[in-house]
Amino acid sequence: MATVYAIILAGGLGERFWPLGTPERPKPFLRLLEGKSFLQATVERMRLLIPLSCQLVVTGRSHAGLVRGEVPDLPEENLLLEPEGRNTAVAIGLASLHLEQKDPEAALIALPADHAIPDEALFLKALERGIAAALAQEGTVVFGIPPDRPETGYGYIQRGQKIEEGLYQVHRFWEKPDLPTAEGFLRSGDYFWNSGIFVWRNRVLQRLLERHLPDHWQSLSRLREVWGTEVYNPLLQAIYARLEGVSIDSGVLEKAEGTVMVHGGFRWDDVGTWAALARVLPRDPSGNIVMGRHLGLETKDCVIYSSGRMIGTVGLEGLIIVETEQGILVATKEKSQEVRRMARLAKKASLEG
Amino acid sequence: MATVYAIILAGGLGERFWPLGTPERPKPFLRLLEGKSFLQATVERMRLLIPLSCQLVVTGRSHAGLVRGEVPDLPEENLLLEPEGRNTAVAIGLASLHLEQKDPEAALIALPADHAIPDEALFLKALERGIAAALAQEGTVVFGIPPDRPETGYGYIQRGQKIEEGLYQVHRFWEKPDLPTAEGFLRSGDYFWNSGIFVWRNRVLQRLLERHLPDHWQSLSRLREVWGTEVYNPLLQAIYARLEGVSIDSGVLEKAEGTVMVHGGFRWDDVGTWAALARVLPRDPSGNIVMGRHLGLETKDCVIYSSGRMIGTVGLEGLIIVETEQGILVATKEKSQEVRRMARLAKKASLEG
Repeated sequence: MATVYAIILAGGLGERFWPLGTPERPKPFLRLLEGKSFLQATVERMRLLIPLSCQLVVTGRSHAGLVRGEVPDLPEENLLLEPEGRNTAVAIGLASLHLEQKDPEAALIALPADHAIPDEALFLKALERGIAAALAQEGTVVFGIPPDRPETGYGYIQRGQKIEEGLYQVHRFWEKPDLPTAEGFLRSGDYFWNSGIFVWRNRVLQRLLERHLPDHWQSLSRLREVWGTEVYNPLLQAIYARLEGVSIDSGVLEKAEGTVMVHGGFRWDDVGTWAALARVLPRDPSGNIVMGRHLGLETKDCVIYSSGRMIGTVGLEGLIIVETEQGILVATKEKSQEVRRMARLAKKASLEG
Repeated sequence: MATVYAIILAGGLGERFWPLGTPERPKPFLRLLEGKSFLQATVERMRLLIPLSCQLVVTGRSHAGLVRGEVPDLPEENLLLEPEGRNTAVAIGLASLHLEQKDPEAALIALPADHAIPDEALFLKALERGIAAALAQEGTVVFGIPPDRPETGYGYIQRGQKIEEGLYQVHRFWEKPDLPTAEGFLRSGDYFWNSGIFVWRNRVLQRLLERHLPDHWQSLSRLREVWGTEVYNPLLQAIYARLEGVSIDSGVLEKAEGTVMVHGGFRWDDVGTWAALARVLPRDPSGNIVMGRHLGLETKDCVIYSSGRMIGTVGLEGLIIVETEQGILVATKEKSQEVRRMARLAKKASLEG
């Protein structure tokens, strides 16, 4: 049976977790999960199924040190560095080429380093189901999460025909919907959140890349001839410099036939905002999530993060408050999508000022 | 005609402006009035009527350096230092003894260093009126401010018989009322905020202290014999160590006859909370008062103070946000009275932790 590798994608700009996240330390490297970083939590979760020797982390060259710090046991050859971010299809393509050197019969699970999956046992069960499905057929296996709210920040999978219990053909993928559409999706029962976790046999993945992203794939494939030589890095840099970024969803999955969806019975959250932490972390009796020093009077349902200084709060509800050396954020949970805009404004202001 | 001196009382614990105010730097020394400290603004305002050589600042011994820093031109002999705070009656008594050495015929205006009085011309006019009244009679002159809201944080003066236009006998003083009482006061038109500004001929003040606070006055009077000697400081310390603190309001004014009230036509605010700054400082077009670095998205009617770091706010209304090295405060304006409690909690936490 094929060996299954985990391809952990650790990228990001750090904007949504301003002022804690920065381009120098994006979300996978933030220790927001009860003392663990997202990357650490992801590696530990995958380790229950896949040994660290079979886990590859793809990250930006400038984040290599962070990965080594967060996952000190990761073999150096399992750290795949990109010169710059080119989105998931390119990162997965690079990992695929790397894997074929290691193991021509490999299968792989590609997944982001910065999601939260509180139900480990259910997750592993779904993953095993997905691996079996991927080994048995010629397409992509995706994991669909039954929505429990009309989330407009996620992509959706519309399921098609049932193959067997918990396994469906994919009818189509949907980009982030508007609220009425998301409400319709929720009511229908046929729409699932796209968890961003994918399984393929590596040969199948390469065929899909070749068919649907031929330019990207041909460019990347030039690396085959220079693997392990001193030409590898300059060539990688030259290829990346001219490649356009493209996601695996829009570049491959939305065009490909034969994709199947595993019904993911596990809780999953992409933790795309500070407010989302409230869904995945335990709350105190007032409904607050507190990291660091805090004193509260009449304070409830807040997310509070202090990197060092005491935060005193009085009479608050539903706010996000973050203190770091880079700045202070105070925002309502409802508006936490706007933190990205704030990060850009702050960057501009710091460049100007 | 008697020379009129200003006795500026610069004390406080710094609790209400946590985390900016501290016992080491209480409110008079906070630069919250468009770059000026309360003490600076008070001295400058009084200077329009009274030269600096006739202004005395009474402050705690540990705050001497702050006074010298904020008012560098103040003659050193005009700085009166207390070993510890014993409230306004004791501070004014000490100043009175000091004044009698300088000028046996002196009159004095006693006033806090930490109020805001935006209307200088009207204030000076009322003050001149009050001085004339104090020189003409044998009691205290107080300044009553017509209330424009049912404020429960202030003391009130109930006016009595009219003496002449804008000058009234005082019927009685009232402590901070509850809200229904304050609403009644507001409707009546006969109740005025006690601005904490008083004028006396010094001989009159001393007679009042002797009659109504005989123990305090006898204790303080022992300083007369040691003025200018090396015994002064140890004796001062010994006297203060055994004196109980008492305010001029409860210790003298509430008992004394013959107090008259000048109708204060000037705007006045004791700026007792962060929220009160919104009444005395100019707002930006969104209704915010911003000191220091701030970026706001959908942010209105907030008071924002940064001592250095960028504060980013999203979707907020009616909050107080303060960043200092000592800590971060986020509170609703409605609850800004609770900041004092927060200061005490924070002090306790820092001692423990």
